[in-house]
Amino acid sequence: MPLIQVTMLQGRTIDQKRKIATRITDTMVEEAGARREAIVVTFIEVSKESYASGGELMIDKAK
Amino acid sequence: MPLIQVTMLQGRTIDQKRKIATRITDTMVEEAGARREAIVVTFIEVSKESYASGGELMIDKAK
Amino acid sequence: MPLIQVTMLQGRTIDQKRKIATRITDTMVEEAGARREAIVVTFIEVSKESYASGGELMIDKAK
Amino acid sequence: MPLIQVTMLQGRTIDQKRKIATRITDTMVEEAGARREAIVVTFIEVSKESYASGGELMIDKAK
Amino acid sequence: MPLIQVTMLQGRTIDQKRKIATRITDTMVEEAGARREAIVVTFIEVSKESYASGGELMIDKAK
Amino acid sequence: MPLIQVTMLQGRTIDQKRKIATRITDTMVEEAGARREAIVVTFIEVSKESYASGGELMIDKAK
Repeated sequence: MPLIQVTMLQGRTIDQKRKIATRITDTMVEEAGARREAIVVTFIEVSKESYASGGELMIDKAK
Repeated sequence: MPLIQVTMLQGRTIDQKRKIATRITDTMVEEAGARREAIVVTFIEVSKESYASGGELMIDKAK
Repeated sequence: MPLIQVTMLQGRTIDQKRKIATRITDTMVEEAGARREAIVVTFIEVSKESYASGGELMIDKAK
Repeated sequence: MPLIQVTMLQGRTIDQKRKIATRITDTMVEEAGARREAIVVTFIEVSKESYASGGELMIDKAK
Repeated sequence: MPLIQVTMLQGRTIDQKRKIATRITDTMVEEAGARREAIVVTFIEVSKESYASGGELMIDKAK
Repeated sequence: MPLIQVTMLQGRTIDQKRKIATRITDTMVEEAGARREAIVVTFIEVSKESYASGGELMIDKAK
């Protein structure tokens, strides 16, 4: 039943997402006792202009 | 005042979203007593490589 | 696969949630072609001091 | 530590997002006593066909 | 129409939330051109055992 | 920078959350190349009456 939403910058490959989804699912099965089929992982990918930390957009930090 | 966020795979038509938004809004008015004008429905659409269940990306299940 | 998150004020009964969950699920099956077993509806309930519209907390509007 | 997620219609410029991120961050520092470096602001931008209020998609209101 | 969700640690007073909601709403009106009445701010408050940064729960950092 | 939000049923212990947070953080460092200090994991815990799958509240399934 756990739902895991991962918000991160764009640019990860499908293979990276595959590994992340698998490992997070394994974690929820092994540590939370969740049923594997019931675990959902979604990726919300944002651009560097849509993510700020410390009040500064990533696109500005990159400069 | 209710906010309803629908996370689903890409590919639904505008007409499908229109019907979903209307029916969810009707539901909140009729069952929760919410004011129609105050109900917001948003759709977050993710690709098959950004959605996993049971530890497997949809793009891999489709194979 | 659709995930529906409903954010609303506290105070709805279990029966109201039951009906809302059923009707939203029906909607996603009938309008989006989703598989019933794969649809998840969650309710995030907030207090009147944790919800503002128009810049005003609900607790202040209630006065 | 606060995480602020802003869901809004597409179409704001980078400069608008920059100002929004800065002002929200300032607000959290000044009013909530949060540490500036620990504040994250993300923008989730949706199209007019993915946002409904009062049961009506924005794309239909625009007509 | 913007929806702003603020996830933060429990413990802020009503007055702090009031000021945060007002200032974020002002920001969205002034910088994004949003209609004041259509702006919603919600606070999701989590305990120190439900918030981790750097892989460590806040409750453990506090020690 | 990744933000990971875990929505799950209430009832996990602090120690379970500790292990989940650590393993998800490790995953994001090792698979996504994220900076450890910038990774945030939050837990949103819902009751059995606030979580439905297949159109049925968990509280009803438990019967």
